Amino acid sequence: MAKISPLAPARFPEFPDIAGLELAGAPCGLKQSGRHDLFLARLAPSTTVAGVFTRSKCPSAPVDWCRKILKHGKARAIVVNSGNANAFTGKAGDRTVEYTVAAAATLFGCREDEVYVSSTGVIGVPVPQDFVGAKLPGLAKQLRPDGWNDAAKAIMTTDTFPKGAVRTARIGDAEVTVAGFAKGSGMIAPDLATMLAYLFTDAKIPAKVLQPLLARAADESFNAITVDGDTSTSDTMLLCATGAGPAHRRVTSASDRHLADFRRALTEVASDLAVQIVRDGEGAQKLITIDVTGAASKRAARRIGLAIANSPLVKTAVAGGDPNWGRIVAAVGKAGEKADRDRLSISIGGVPVTENGQLRPDYSEKTTAEHMAGDDIRFAVDLGLGRGRARVWSCDLTHGYITINADYRT
Amino acid sequence: MAKISPLAPARFPEFPDIAGLELAGAPCGLKQSGRHDLFLARLAPSTTVAGVFTRSKCPSAPVDWCRKILKHGKARAIVVNSGNANAFTGKAGDRTVEYTVAAAATLFGCREDEVYVSSTGVIGVPVPQDFVGAKLPGLAKQLRPDGWNDAAKAIMTTDTFPKGAVRTARIGDAEVTVAGFAKGSGMIAPDLATMLAYLFTDAKIPAKVLQPLLARAADESFNAITVDGDTSTSDTMLLCATGAGPAHRRVTSASDRHLADFRRALTEVASDLAVQIVRDGEGAQKLITIDVTGAASKRAARRIGLAIANSPLVKTAVAGGDPNWGRIVAAVGKAGEKADRDRLSISIGGVPVTENGQLRPDYSEKTTAEHMAGDDIRFAVDLGLGRGRARVWSCDLTHGYITINADYRT
Repeated sequence: MAKISPLAPARFPEFPDIAGLELAGAPCGLKQSGRHDLFLARLAPSTTVAGVFTRSKCPSAPVDWCRKILKHGKARAIVVNSGNANAFTGKAGDRTVEYTVAAAATLFGCREDEVYVSSTGVIGVPVPQDFVGAKLPGLAKQLRPDGWNDAAKAIMTTDTFPKGAVRTARIGDAEVTVAGFAKGSGMIAPDLATMLAYLFTDAKIPAKVLQPLLARAADESFNAITVDGDTSTSDTMLLCATGAGPAHRRVTSASDRHLADFRRALTEVASDLAVQIVRDGEGAQKLITIDVTGAASKRAARRIGLAIANSPLVKTAVAGGDPNWGRIVAAVGKAGEKADRDRLSISIGGVPVTENGQLRPDYSEKTTAEHMAGDDIRFAVDLGLGRGRARVWSCDLTHGYITINADYRT
Repeated sequence: MAKISPLAPARFPEFPDIAGLELAGAPCGLKQSGRHDLFLARLAPSTTVAGVFTRSKCPSAPVDWCRKILKHGKARAIVVNSGNANAFTGKAGDRTVEYTVAAAATLFGCREDEVYVSSTGVIGVPVPQDFVGAKLPGLAKQLRPDGWNDAAKAIMTTDTFPKGAVRTARIGDAEVTVAGFAKGSGMIAPDLATMLAYLFTDAKIPAKVLQPLLARAADESFNAITVDGDTSTSDTMLLCATGAGPAHRRVTSASDRHLADFRRALTEVASDLAVQIVRDGEGAQKLITIDVTGAASKRAARRIGLAIANSPLVKTAVAGGDPNWGRIVAAVGKAGEKADRDRLSISIGGVPVTENGQLRPDYSEKTTAEHMAGDDIRFAVDLGLGRGRARVWSCDLTHGYITINADYRT
């Protein structure tokens, strides 16, 4: 068991119950360690659902299934196993999903297209098709409204701490809750250990409104982080709205002004979880926050931010505590977006380093070196071209990453 | 001084003289170590030139200059300094280029737009504008037809060995030579240490024919390697044809069938140098050769190959001697090109691992583990979709890379 990341939050948050949701997490025998490896959620019949999935062209069987049923927009059950990814298991993997879905539908008396499934862990190793399904009736006895911590633990693979976040929001006069948990210690961790996130709210929101809300929140959070620039075959993020909370005014559009506070809370929960994933990045010793401004567009700002965030040279410089702004310039140039050397400004830890395409005459490396010695690293890049802006997060690239990934299976 | 890479060739090759070319390399005081840091080439008046440059949107001042003069297609001098990149030095950097070019043009009695310049080394640190130019008259006294080794050493930064390659080719009945040298230990090495390559031939080839020949050779070689996926602001590759060798039939088109053997020799020299750069990859202990076949197009095959070659998880698995084919699947999926899980075949060291989207029933990890214990790693991926194919090269990602890059300036 790896040591807990030095960047881990002090504690797992306190969660309120969400009406219409019960959760359970327990060991089912897929992890050789005997740790929690199966998560089950039961959702009220009123529950709507939204989802975003990996862009991988080789998605896992569970992702194929979830994408297919998402158009119905209803969820009654979520089943997630860790310890085995059910990825690259051919047609047998598809059968495993079918069996698991059928077992959950029978158990809860719901339709099969209301059962969402994810798997994460070792890939290419088939398990008996009924293995997970057969464990569900036993686990269902442990369903509880306050099962958050067990649930968050049950989806972990190489994570060194469970990741949870919760916020409240007002819709009109009613106060609703947005809460969730996630796993991952890389956009892809060893053997496709995968990014998974499950968010829940007691608000009543139609699926067609929920989907754009989730897509926007994902874009500001999980799509803005990187540990190693890799993408899993299984990345999955779901948002379930039970509609069982306090009554509130009807919402019919994602841009409804009465959803402003809900959008804020949703993005905060998603960002909180996303940054926790970076904080648990393999071998991470430092969190890197990169603000890009003045880009030609928002998309350009994001791409430039991710080019910096993914640069092995920037990430190793951070590991070494080196305020190596030249590597930031190189990453900006490599992003492929419009840039002008003579308009580019870079600051490190709030200290301006460059202007007009060269080092500022008053720049002293002493202050930036002090900032780089800490574990909360801030880079700001202004392109001086337009109004596009984006924030992305990354972590440093250390000997720990090499040790974890070079020695994972051997 | 870093230890010589374990993947280095046994020796620097023997070079024949190339009529119309003299070279010199010597220390000029830019490297604090006192090593060679200035290279000068004098070329016969008949010399034509082709060039390819970094795609960075923040190119260095020397790259801007070379691009500008390339349209004339004539070269009489090449001046390259190491130890200082003259990148991100603002308008002062442009002045340095102008001064260097003027000094060389005066020295050789040629036009300024016949003088090519590159700089590599520490960035953001201006040098006096006349520093390099003032050293040229002294260095010119050392110009010799056999100055290859001094020249190759003078362009090195973090390289652990000088990189040279030579081939002969027939054009009609005449035998011509293609020879060159390169530097780089990453598409970008610390502080933009840059990929540079200078190729020469005594063949007589018009500039408009030379350019497509070089572009094609670069595409099969330097554009098919990666150490860390980064791109320098200064990458430069030049091919000079002195036309001073044995008389041969006139060539007027890059696709001339009489140039077939020349194209072969040029691509071999370029690939030889490119693979030497990978062999000198920072911290590299193993060379990785990736063959992609059956892709939807050649471009798709290249992108898939580079996605595998750039994956930190694949590269760390190689470092650990782990035949972790799952990470290859993930990289294929991430490339964004068409792929079908159920048609994908992967082999490691010539041993088939997967077929029909799952592990082969007869697969035993013993043989692939033996292959992965060596230092010449071969992956083959067949997409089963079309006829697109590509070969790319990479190296493993080791603790040595972290040590070199985290500790470079501190």
